[in-house]
Amino acid sequence: MMQNELACDAGCKWRRLQQAMREIDAGGCLLSADVNLYYVTGRIYNGYFYLPAEGDPWFFVKRPVGLSGEHVVYIRKPEQMKEIFADRGLSMPDKLLLEADELCYNEYERLKAIFNPLCTANATTLIRTHRMIKTPWEIEQFRISARMHALTYAAIPACYRPGMTDLDFQYEIEHLMRRNGSIGIFRTFGSNMDIFQGSILTGDNAGAPSPFDFALGGAGAGVFAPLGANGTLLEDGMAVMVDMAGNYTAYITDMTRTFSIGKLPELACRAHQVSRLIQEETERIARPGISCAELYRLALAIVSQEKLEPYFMGTKQQAKFVGHGIGIQINELPVLTPRSKDILQPNMVFALEPKFVIPGVGAVGIENSFLVTETGIEKVTQAEEDIINLTS
Amino acid sequence: MMQNELACDAGCKWRRLQQAMREIDAGGCLLSADVNLYYVTGRIYNGYFYLPAEGDPWFFVKRPVGLSGEHVVYIRKPEQMKEIFADRGLSMPDKLLLEADELCYNEYERLKAIFNPLCTANATTLIRTHRMIKTPWEIEQFRISARMHALTYAAIPACYRPGMTDLDFQYEIEHLMRRNGSIGIFRTFGSNMDIFQGSILTGDNAGAPSPFDFALGGAGAGVFAPLGANGTLLEDGMAVMVDMAGNYTAYITDMTRTFSIGKLPELACRAHQVSRLIQEETERIARPGISCAELYRLALAIVSQEKLEPYFMGTKQQAKFVGHGIGIQINELPVLTPRSKDILQPNMVFALEPKFVIPGVGAVGIENSFLVTETGIEKVTQAEEDIINLTS
Repeated sequence: MMQNELACDAGCKWRRLQQAMREIDAGGCLLSADVNLYYVTGRIYNGYFYLPAEGDPWFFVKRPVGLSGEHVVYIRKPEQMKEIFADRGLSMPDKLLLEADELCYNEYERLKAIFNPLCTANATTLIRTHRMIKTPWEIEQFRISARMHALTYAAIPACYRPGMTDLDFQYEIEHLMRRNGSIGIFRTFGSNMDIFQGSILTGDNAGAPSPFDFALGGAGAGVFAPLGANGTLLEDGMAVMVDMAGNYTAYITDMTRTFSIGKLPELACRAHQVSRLIQEETERIARPGISCAELYRLALAIVSQEKLEPYFMGTKQQAKFVGHGIGIQINELPVLTPRSKDILQPNMVFALEPKFVIPGVGAVGIENSFLVTETGIEKVTQAEEDIINLTS
Repeated sequence: MMQNELACDAGCKWRRLQQAMREIDAGGCLLSADVNLYYVTGRIYNGYFYLPAEGDPWFFVKRPVGLSGEHVVYIRKPEQMKEIFADRGLSMPDKLLLEADELCYNEYERLKAIFNPLCTANATTLIRTHRMIKTPWEIEQFRISARMHALTYAAIPACYRPGMTDLDFQYEIEHLMRRNGSIGIFRTFGSNMDIFQGSILTGDNAGAPSPFDFALGGAGAGVFAPLGANGTLLEDGMAVMVDMAGNYTAYITDMTRTFSIGKLPELACRAHQVSRLIQEETERIARPGISCAELYRLALAIVSQEKLEPYFMGTKQQAKFVGHGIGIQINELPVLTPRSKDILQPNMVFALEPKFVIPGVGAVGIENSFLVTETGIEKVTQAEEDIINLTS
């Protein structure tokens, strides 16, 4: 069933999940969201993964045909799981975990009716908490993505031609990403997070509010895609923020760099340096045991001292976070918000993105992806951090 | 709140929905899925659209900032809707429609607790049934997408270079699509339908089963993206099926064309002509009142007569449909399946895609998008339908 290189990795994940299930007296956990199946089996299929609190997991597969292995059972519809459990002498759990934040209501109710447990609880919470701490194999995937992400960003200046709009520029970067092996698909958690391959922000469009919960907005190409580049002509004195996905493996690195058309005004340059300063100070204090709320407060204190609050994380609409966990989806745990309860732990991977919107100029600042080590944090996305002039 | 050009269009939709709601004694309908909000308001926002069975709708907005208009109310969390209803003298419905196939379980339960209706029913069913019949404005959007789709396909031969893999070829077509105004985002209904900008299938990869419910499969670039092109080198005697999205407006046209590297074997050429024959025969009988199941049976009868069943809609894994409705999402109603209860009605728009997988060669056949008129069907995706040799 599994990719060979993942077999051990998956086994470790199952044991950790089972221990957590026993702690909350859950007898079983049923997963079917693509990202969760990939996490626990190393592949995406149409079907279900059932993990009992004790013993080996079961793989109930609708599609594709041709999978085989121990405990792989083909089904046409989920109701068949009931008879399969009976035939194999498997007991139905009294407390069943279902993906309450990922399954649609009807699917949840259907699965609940099949298993008919005494109670259900949220598998999404359990698995997102576990996905937060990465395994060695997952960390290696991030390193591969980070290398390709940096390689792509190094070639961004060659994508620029005078007279381009932000969209023209984005199309060239997207093309470069794909030729460098980007998988294209950009996975997000939650509804209403419509993003394509990433975001480019320049000029006044950088401050345009979007419906989505990303760090910054942008009007987008139209009302049907209200995020990012909107066709603004790249002109002298503009900052061009590039925040394109690092999805070169299933594990997405997040990295933002600021480019410019000519020289930027002093305020923009200063704000960019403050973003770098926030990163430096974060690198100085971040380590296992530090709270994510404290990292947010650190960033805000620096911003406040520099009197840059009106520009921080937007103008008209300001995001109330300065970073977020990354993984198979771009918005995993932990969250770096004022009220976050998350505490840094070894093998978490998160993106730090202190950004500023400067009216009439664009967005400035940097974003990098960090691995939490035993003693601190390690930057995995290594690339020039100064503002890069596209016209020089 | 609404785009001007949509104001009338939206009003018509609201009245149709309200009439349907009254027929099932529903007092109100609450929508929040991006595609449904776009359908009823002409924009995507983070929040809710509430339509009572009688009277004007309400727009509850969380993000973006800056929307205004009659009945536009900003909220931080959905619980505030309760007090707003009380303040404005709006009655809570006894029967509330919620998006049971789109909202996650927890969100559905949260909204239900706020409105506390005597019963809920499925808003997804209601709105998908209405979205099935397109308005004049929506049909015009399809026509724009179709024009750009055809223009892009006409330039596909120029994307080919000898020595390319299917992925290399796809990257060039994706780039072309974007420069021609593709919005990038490719919306699908349901979970586990991970697709990027479309699919290219060639050689033996055309028969590789995928987890997803698209017409054909393909192994994809990796286990984390198991659909479509897989890096197969394009070589003499191969068919190259191009099925890339027509998302040049919010309304997606669906169109497939078959290209070749040199000359294809007789079986492949014959199967391609049978696909065209199925289209011709469908055009001859399809009109309002004809059942979608009958169109499926027609296709299957031709396939059977030509003894091409082993290749129809796949080999190892065969899709059990020959077409599907299109709209804001690629898989709308109606469905052209053996057991479909859908009957063609004027202003439905659907894609017909009789395809064949020829082992060792690739996939052949065509797909077009059709508008159901008062008297028949009209092909909206006009482009060369013969196999186009990329090397000549």
